[in-house]
Amino acid sequence: MNYFSSNFKLGILGGGQLGKMLLNDTRKFDIYTCVLDASKEAPCKIASNEFHLGDLMDYDAVYNFGKQVDVLTFEIENVNVDALEALEKEGKKVYPSSKTLRTIQNKATQKLFYVDHNLPTAPFSRFAYLSEIEDAINNGGLEFPFVWKATQFGYDGNGVKVVRKLSDLEDLPKGECIAENLVPFKNELAVIVARNASGETKTFPVVEMEFHPEANQVEYVICPARIPDAVAKKATDVALKTSEAYNHVGLLAVEMFQTENDDILINEVAPRPHNSGHQTIEASYTSQFEQHLRAILNLPLGRTDSKVGGVMVNLVGAEGFSGNVIYENIKDIMKLDGVTPHIYGKKQTRPFRKMGHVTIVNEDLNEARRVAEEVKKTIKVISE
Amino acid sequence: MNYFSSNFKLGILGGGQLGKMLLNDTRKFDIYTCVLDASKEAPCKIASNEFHLGDLMDYDAVYNFGKQVDVLTFEIENVNVDALEALEKEGKKVYPSSKTLRTIQNKATQKLFYVDHNLPTAPFSRFAYLSEIEDAINNGGLEFPFVWKATQFGYDGNGVKVVRKLSDLEDLPKGECIAENLVPFKNELAVIVARNASGETKTFPVVEMEFHPEANQVEYVICPARIPDAVAKKATDVALKTSEAYNHVGLLAVEMFQTENDDILINEVAPRPHNSGHQTIEASYTSQFEQHLRAILNLPLGRTDSKVGGVMVNLVGAEGFSGNVIYENIKDIMKLDGVTPHIYGKKQTRPFRKMGHVTIVNEDLNEARRVAEEVKKTIKVISE
Repeated sequence: MNYFSSNFKLGILGGGQLGKMLLNDTRKFDIYTCVLDASKEAPCKIASNEFHLGDLMDYDAVYNFGKQVDVLTFEIENVNVDALEALEKEGKKVYPSSKTLRTIQNKATQKLFYVDHNLPTAPFSRFAYLSEIEDAINNGGLEFPFVWKATQFGYDGNGVKVVRKLSDLEDLPKGECIAENLVPFKNELAVIVARNASGETKTFPVVEMEFHPEANQVEYVICPARIPDAVAKKATDVALKTSEAYNHVGLLAVEMFQTENDDILINEVAPRPHNSGHQTIEASYTSQFEQHLRAILNLPLGRTDSKVGGVMVNLVGAEGFSGNVIYENIKDIMKLDGVTPHIYGKKQTRPFRKMGHVTIVNEDLNEARRVAEEVKKTIKVISE
Repeated sequence: MNYFSSNFKLGILGGGQLGKMLLNDTRKFDIYTCVLDASKEAPCKIASNEFHLGDLMDYDAVYNFGKQVDVLTFEIENVNVDALEALEKEGKKVYPSSKTLRTIQNKATQKLFYVDHNLPTAPFSRFAYLSEIEDAINNGGLEFPFVWKATQFGYDGNGVKVVRKLSDLEDLPKGECIAENLVPFKNELAVIVARNASGETKTFPVVEMEFHPEANQVEYVICPARIPDAVAKKATDVALKTSEAYNHVGLLAVEMFQTENDDILINEVAPRPHNSGHQTIEASYTSQFEQHLRAILNLPLGRTDSKVGGVMVNLVGAEGFSGNVIYENIKDIMKLDGVTPHIYGKKQTRPFRKMGHVTIVNEDLNEARRVAEEVKKTIKVISE
């Protein structure tokens, strides 16, 4: 199929910031795009060739949208997977596959998948209702502390909580969840694996993530991770095995824990471009977004090594501010060496909402990390 | 003025490939854009917030468009400069200025500007009509060989011809022109200077251009130029002096000749992002397009040095092909290391039409140059 012709249509489910950054590369290759999103104000409203309004969880909306395109992908996991499966049965190319997405959408199913495929992950128990956790504690079947995770629709740290006492369970959603052993770890690492339909596979360098204590959102992504080569190799191998287990096509971002004794445990995966890969736009030979396109269109994959060291800082809404967004001191950070702000185009800010990110690149990774802290101290996402 | 708010509107005259690449960066910063172009099929039809249809040479079209925006810039020189001047008189920010554009639009006026400012350029004579050139030759006032240049509306090598005998003058436009001494040169070089309204100035590295013999279009741009430091310094100084002479705001691409005895002569300038700067997207810390935005919005300028070596190959329509475009073997070049195709999105190809470009980056510039030749041999822009 000739992707570089106007007869070809790429469908993207979701019109958020990941889709917006993906569109920069579809524009670069002049690939015709159709985007489905529920919001008239979605960042992908412009730059896509066709913007369709519709609910991503609605079977008919997704099915009818998918019928009109040649290849279908998504920038968010919360889409109607039954519609994707129906489209695949009719021969539509859906990358990543509905099977992969169905497994990933439910954290319990995802964890069981790792167990079934002998992939390392922290021990856990599955519960149909929150109340069953209390029973397990009372029966001595579960001990504090543990990590509660909702099995569905968690994002950006929502749906995850460390539970140290019974009262921590109050106000948690009542539905299906897992209790995961609280494993002490040195680092949170991530590896993005790209695989195309022909099976060509490449991995981006291991990155290191520093989290914001309250928001439980990534605060810094550091590429490459400052870890021993042996640990980097182990993490890369686990990521590759995971991608193979899913028989994945597209990008797979594998988030992992480096334990106190340097074991690697899979935390969770995302079958799409990922926050831990944003620095690839400026730091790598190929950005994760271009690589995702190359993978799902079965084009040759690009180089994944880095030109320079890269650090990514998330721009999230400051606490205590809600309303029309203002990026305070953005001009000041643009004075700093190797600083590139990415503004997602969301008009309204609220505490911890992802509004953009800033990439800092430098030949010297430590210098990039130093500048990143200055960026973090300087810019503030507030409201009018 | 807060550029990072939806109250601000940036106007761009021209919706071609330069505008299209500029829009990637306005999207990155979430800057609201309005584009004016005469063609419904302009590459900027999408990705701009507002697309306006209108003739760029029509006073009313440009004036009325300009009234609606806060800052006005252009991606092509052939726009109605009287309208720009009227808008400036009303206090509208127009960058680069109408004065600069008026001087540059006419090659004779542009050359006289260099003479007036003691900037080095090849000797020339100005003629109101082509017939006056024949008179000058007959009177012995002009000798073969020389370079004929139309004073207006030349682009991509059109409007330029080496004249070695009277018959070479046949079929040339009859209007105003110049006859320039044919100066033997070693290299064609270019330096892109960025200057913001506060006067902050930065230059990109000197690049070396290799031209296609027949088409008289750039075939390879090599960054950095493989020339002695002393020559690079001389070229950079000339470019800086030229930018100062224009009191320029925005990007100024200065094309120069390196003569046999290493003198630097200005060929011509372009007051906008330029073909000789496309490799900055992948090779530099800051792309020329982001830098143009930073300059015209009076933001701090970004780093202009390179992360890696870069070579740019123009993708022009192959001879003998006209019609719906096909990029033959594009997948094959995407297998090569550090290769990024940029497809401009023009639906119709014709001989020597600029349809896109390919950037090749590598730690080793010579390896990038080697791959560039392979790219050139492999991909072909043909028609269905």
